Amino acid sequence: MTGAPVSTFSKGLEEVVATESSICSIDGKGLRLRYRGYDIHELVQRSSYDEVVYLLLRGELPTAVQLTELRRRLAAERPLPPAVSRFIETLPAGTNPMAVLRTVVSYMALQDPESESKAPDANERKALRLIARLPTVVAAYDRLRNGKRPVEAAADAETGTAACFLRMLKGAESRELEVKALDQYLVLLAEHDLNASTFAARTTASTTSDIYSAVTSAIGALKGDLHGSANTRSMEMILEVGSPEKAEAYVTSALDRKEKLMGFGHRVYKGQDPRADDLRRMAKDLIREVPEQAKWYAISEAIERAVKEKKNLSCNVDFYSASVLYSIGIPVDLFTPMFAVSRIAGWTAHILEQYANNRLLRPVSAYLGPSPRAYVPIQNR
Amino acid sequence: MTGAPVSTFSKGLEEVVATESSICSIDGKGLRLRYRGYDIHELVQRSSYDEVVYLLLRGELPTAVQLTELRRRLAAERPLPPAVSRFIETLPAGTNPMAVLRTVVSYMALQDPESESKAPDANERKALRLIARLPTVVAAYDRLRNGKRPVEAAADAETGTAACFLRMLKGAESRELEVKALDQYLVLLAEHDLNASTFAARTTASTTSDIYSAVTSAIGALKGDLHGSANTRSMEMILEVGSPEKAEAYVTSALDRKEKLMGFGHRVYKGQDPRADDLRRMAKDLIREVPEQAKWYAISEAIERAVKEKKNLSCNVDFYSASVLYSIGIPVDLFTPMFAVSRIAGWTAHILEQYANNRLLRPVSAYLGPSPRAYVPIQNR
Repeated sequence: MTGAPVSTFSKGLEEVVATESSICSIDGKGLRLRYRGYDIHELVQRSSYDEVVYLLLRGELPTAVQLTELRRRLAAERPLPPAVSRFIETLPAGTNPMAVLRTVVSYMALQDPESESKAPDANERKALRLIARLPTVVAAYDRLRNGKRPVEAAADAETGTAACFLRMLKGAESRELEVKALDQYLVLLAEHDLNASTFAARTTASTTSDIYSAVTSAIGALKGDLHGSANTRSMEMILEVGSPEKAEAYVTSALDRKEKLMGFGHRVYKGQDPRADDLRRMAKDLIREVPEQAKWYAISEAIERAVKEKKNLSCNVDFYSASVLYSIGIPVDLFTPMFAVSRIAGWTAHILEQYANNRLLRPVSAYLGPSPRAYVPIQNR
Repeated sequence: MTGAPVSTFSKGLEEVVATESSICSIDGKGLRLRYRGYDIHELVQRSSYDEVVYLLLRGELPTAVQLTELRRRLAAERPLPPAVSRFIETLPAGTNPMAVLRTVVSYMALQDPESESKAPDANERKALRLIARLPTVVAAYDRLRNGKRPVEAAADAETGTAACFLRMLKGAESRELEVKALDQYLVLLAEHDLNASTFAARTTASTTSDIYSAVTSAIGALKGDLHGSANTRSMEMILEVGSPEKAEAYVTSALDRKEKLMGFGHRVYKGQDPRADDLRRMAKDLIREVPEQAKWYAISEAIERAVKEKKNLSCNVDFYSASVLYSIGIPVDLFTPMFAVSRIAGWTAHILEQYANNRLLRPVSAYLGPSPRAYVPIQNR
């Protein structure tokens, strides 16, 4: 291989501005995250996921009337079309749940008469449809693979997304604290600027492809270990460590082997991911009422301490997401689908923003391959 | 909305270097395109799609033995797993064929025991599997929606991809000129650096997500009118114009309405897309034997002339792709799937290259939204 040296470039597009956006601001040095100007810590404490959906899509917090109307629409959209329900029943158990979610979302387009419409109001309807239905798909698939019938989605507008999802997953009411923790989790993960999945969604949308295509791209990107699957990998690590006193040896050994520690470090935050503070507190709150879960929190703290000490790395959103979701009783391999159930709000907000002021996302590469050369017939090779 | 002015950025990442790559070089001013150093015009005239698959994936043209081995492997992989065939039979007719292709490729992951393997040799096997099976999926879907049984894929290693696809689509042998034209089409469209679909694929792959996820992202991106669907839109325009003497009035009227003319202009080429020359010649060759198709070529030429005259825009790869594929007897709404049947070679080459030297593709946005603001309780909004 030959090739002229190329000008420097930012590998992974690190710190490169790829679009303008009015949705989310991240201060990587000040360690602040805001959705449409509202600080994430305030939203977690005082708002709800359904409010945040409205905020992300429309730009402002809803009035009481607007919130009720949104919940009514989400409730109406939650049940899956019969063909989609039947399709989920045919899917093999034991496959990767993110591959399942990606496939079902792609299939949903084939069953949506509006899927090819480019009208802005149709796109907003499809966005709400996807926000409403992702939880239904995840819950239905989990019940079916466990030999249980899916639970029908609540049709009332009083039940928020978190409560509704837990009911569909477990077929029973959850404790108030669990519902609250899941709602807060959904708020925290709903949006994070041009992370790889949102960026994949915007790239796909920038060809004027449809919203199902864009969300399917996003799910495929979220599936990777360097992105959404880090929460599952974090929990696997916590389970493997098994007890707090083994954490330090585990971390030392992993660092010696130059392994990447899942749930630590972040491309944008040059310090503590602000969401990790909220999640740590939630994880701690959750174990107060369920002492048998205290062990996982203690292991998490011990790992966090060891990584900070030996590598000076802070944990990110994925690390305490693991303990929180585990305490709520979410199966470990559904952690990344839960990330999608939340992030669909941010994805669709970005897709609609891309459509509203579009330019094809089409960069170039720096060519490092062979110089021009003449074709050689096959008999002379 | 308030927000501090942001530094300038290149909208759509135009001319921004996003990765290094050794696969393809495009000289947008000199109007040259090369795969791994070989000029596209030479490859079209002297090579074949199967050779180009080898070249793109491995970096060198194959020896005769290597080419035979590749064809043997493609032939072995072409038949679909029974579950995939059954799934295609359940898909509704009358849906967008790109949405179908996206869904089937995503579903194929659930039926591939290797889908979650990150081993380089498993990834290369999956790449060849996808290259082999995309033509089978497109042909099978088209036959099923027309009430015909799919034609079994040829199991011999002598039949190239183009001939095999036409046999599976039509259930009969095609004329030699048609096979040759399709093979040349597949060579021409196989690779084009960081176009939006390849870029979406690399973004998804950069999270270390699996190759099916990355290809699913690419198909979703190719589906857009500003990318792969431009060939279908070009043919719709040619059919709508209906006769050569109406071309000028059509173009004038479209330009007056400020409509985008499909198949004209290109982000990278500042002049004639070099692939358009080959396609124009191929389109002309094809009608020599099928005079009843001559009309479409004549309309294409008339549109090309009018757009050049009135807007000084050159046609791109999509414009004469339309006449070529139409003359070969490909249904108009399969033009974009045919693009995918070819580009899967480039997509998989880029995905493997991304895995081999990975860094998460995660840019940032320039925030233009509201300044920091305090949360307002719902009763006070």
